[in-house]
Amino acid sequence: MAVQKPSIPKGTRDFGQKEMARRNYIFDTIRSVFCSFGYQQIETPAMENLSTLLGKYGEEGDKLLFRILNSGDAFAGVDFDKPLTPQICEKGLRYDLTVPFARYVVQHQNEISFPFKRYQIQPVWRADRPQKGRYREFYQCDVDVIGSRSQVNELELVQMVDAVFSKLGVRVGIHINNRKVLTGFAEIAGAPDKVVDITVAIDKLDKIGLEKVKEEMAEKGLEASGIAVIEQILQLSGSFEEKLASMRALFQGGSASGIGSEEGLKGLDELEELFGLISAASVSQPVQLDLSLARGLNYYTGAIFEVKALDWEIGSICGGGRYDNLTGIFGLPDLSGVGISFGADRIYDVLTGLELFPASLESSPRLLFAVMGADELRYVLPVAAQLRAAGVAVEVYPEATKLKKQFDYADKKAIPFISINGSNEMEASTVNIKNLVTGQQQAFPAADLPAILKFLK
Amino acid sequence: MAVQKPSIPKGTRDFGQKEMARRNYIFDTIRSVFCSFGYQQIETPAMENLSTLLGKYGEEGDKLLFRILNSGDAFAGVDFDKPLTPQICEKGLRYDLTVPFARYVVQHQNEISFPFKRYQIQPVWRADRPQKGRYREFYQCDVDVIGSRSQVNELELVQMVDAVFSKLGVRVGIHINNRKVLTGFAEIAGAPDKVVDITVAIDKLDKIGLEKVKEEMAEKGLEASGIAVIEQILQLSGSFEEKLASMRALFQGGSASGIGSEEGLKGLDELEELFGLISAASVSQPVQLDLSLARGLNYYTGAIFEVKALDWEIGSICGGGRYDNLTGIFGLPDLSGVGISFGADRIYDVLTGLELFPASLESSPRLLFAVMGADELRYVLPVAAQLRAAGVAVEVYPEATKLKKQFDYADKKAIPFISINGSNEMEASTVNIKNLVTGQQQAFPAADLPAILKFLK
Repeated sequence: MAVQKPSIPKGTRDFGQKEMARRNYIFDTIRSVFCSFGYQQIETPAMENLSTLLGKYGEEGDKLLFRILNSGDAFAGVDFDKPLTPQICEKGLRYDLTVPFARYVVQHQNEISFPFKRYQIQPVWRADRPQKGRYREFYQCDVDVIGSRSQVNELELVQMVDAVFSKLGVRVGIHINNRKVLTGFAEIAGAPDKVVDITVAIDKLDKIGLEKVKEEMAEKGLEASGIAVIEQILQLSGSFEEKLASMRALFQGGSASGIGSEEGLKGLDELEELFGLISAASVSQPVQLDLSLARGLNYYTGAIFEVKALDWEIGSICGGGRYDNLTGIFGLPDLSGVGISFGADRIYDVLTGLELFPASLESSPRLLFAVMGADELRYVLPVAAQLRAAGVAVEVYPEATKLKKQFDYADKKAIPFISINGSNEMEASTVNIKNLVTGQQQAFPAADLPAILKFLK
Repeated sequence: MAVQKPSIPKGTRDFGQKEMARRNYIFDTIRSVFCSFGYQQIETPAMENLSTLLGKYGEEGDKLLFRILNSGDAFAGVDFDKPLTPQICEKGLRYDLTVPFARYVVQHQNEISFPFKRYQIQPVWRADRPQKGRYREFYQCDVDVIGSRSQVNELELVQMVDAVFSKLGVRVGIHINNRKVLTGFAEIAGAPDKVVDITVAIDKLDKIGLEKVKEEMAEKGLEASGIAVIEQILQLSGSFEEKLASMRALFQGGSASGIGSEEGLKGLDELEELFGLISAASVSQPVQLDLSLARGLNYYTGAIFEVKALDWEIGSICGGGRYDNLTGIFGLPDLSGVGISFGADRIYDVLTGLELFPASLESSPRLLFAVMGADELRYVLPVAAQLRAAGVAVEVYPEATKLKKQFDYADKKAIPFISINGSNEMEASTVNIKNLVTGQQQAFPAADLPAILKFLK
């Protein structure tokens, strides 16, 4: 009987040893930075009630939820004249970490001390059409603080981004924008409903030029006075401070439309404070105001962040922003929060592309004891145990088989040292260790652990 | 409008900061031991094709699988006259880590170098009726080696159990049995189909006494000569070596039935080799032959392991055994493997009960900079950054609010040190740090990082 070779659902992945070592390296680095800022980890269940998930990601998002069939007889008592899915599925797999976080905060509000600084690294599932770089199961890595409106929180996120990528050796640009400023632009252009169009226009200036942008704005229905305001915004230039001053003048009613914007001014205050804090804290990677940053305009209410690798073309590898009403959907209003999410898969690709993974990740065991027979095996067992107790990863080949096979095994697992011992070594109470990279070989008294450790370094 | 307080599906859990710190401590300890033996981590998707999962866990297991509704319109083209579930669900959540591991080995057999030593720490899902200590989502923590029949593998599992629980500070008893010996008992009792009954009988001797055991065996349909053999087995006593010798005699045809058992003899050889290796490698926790150990009799073919905490009553906290045909179900026969699984939830309960979690897990941040105003904030930011760069977890309170509130925050997060700085400190370029446990307080030059680090130790 031919058995079909097994496979996994499309859009999902197995991670082998090498990928896991690399992924753990990324997660451990991120985790250590989060911890150094006092952020603490939580985990939520893979399954949430659909009542928690539905309606939180738009109509499209609802369709992309993986639903779990009710256990037992899912069709018992079902009315076949009504829509079936809601009757047979009460649970779904989490779609992101944000909604479960909001649910967590509301559910545990009496145990939490605010401001609540949490991080969460867990997989999420989306029934997206799988394609290159888009999976149906992938890890998200979110860090948020909720219950404080202070710009110190935004600063900390920037500091954490800086620390993570500095530790990983990746040069990044940290782009910052502010939703209130974008709202201000739309307000003084007399088109408060055209925030997205205006932000997109700002982004297009370099590519299509001023005239084309103005044409496009007209097509989008912007009045002449509004277009004149857009032109003023597009001509913003100079240092951060100079841009800030120009924008302040515009928001104070000095734009072509003569309309002012309180919201825009608030946004400028936030930006000014944040950039002031950033320079006080000295961040090593470049941070820049990016007025074209238009991420999450449906839910962000203040700062908007995006991080790009400077030496590898891949789009955003990290992003986030401030939201003012995340927990409102679950009945707990007026909690402001700010957070960012690290894109583990893209960071993985950047580190791979730039060859930035430490070589030490490749070979987890350091030494293989080859085995020639039962007596030789018993002879090396205590030595192996001592080395492990001293913190060295050591393998003992489990079979007294051909040496060629044992060497192949060391080679495939990239184990850099091999120890082969026979009757001579046993009589002399020595262990013979060979560096498979340099070819250097040496015999040590079996009891001389320090010398062996030094050789294995 | 009253919004219902959100909840999570029954049988699932949220893990807060404290629980996560403790769980990570357990997993990190286990992981470090696995690594020191050259085992490497893999991860498989949460979802597997139902064709991979169904029929692997018995009829009851099939019912306990969580099935995932096909995405898109799951009911499109469905024949309502046929069973619906198979038509609308192609995927299920993994039920354990063993079947996905077998699937992984078969699918990736050409990339793997055997013997393949892997570990895997991931959640599994079962639609069991939730009850105390039984969850619908829980982590498994499995370590296996596949592709080698050598008892060195069994030894390593014992060594790893020993190392993990020694590191965690838990005294355990490691119980070992062998499926072939149990088969041998049934064979020489003339009842090869009664392995379970006979093993249960051995287990009951202490509780109900010899006569009752014999009665029960008769009820189970064992012949008189078989019962006489059981009596011989129950009378096995003495040291490990003496028991081994007595069993060898029985399996060589010296039992009351006169029947011998090749399989039983093989099992004894394995046990003898394994216990010899264990004493050569010197294992610190007690290891014992336990002929009543009857775990996994449907799939184990050699060694059977079970680990119990000696100072906390909770049942088995770790168990496993050798299986000869795990990958046969997916078309790759003749690969023998052996593995164990650590029960994370029970280990958590043991460590909690015995108060063995290190106190250091409780307070992840070490120091809180209280904040009195914008200038004071800017003053401490670089100091906080330097301390973090030196490896100390530090928080800066994000708001210039009442000191009482900031002290409460430090208290709730168990942050042991607080630093409060005002105009005096700023003028003198010092930082003032207070140990909240001892009450000791000291001012340091802001630039004297070594002195500050020493105080925070």
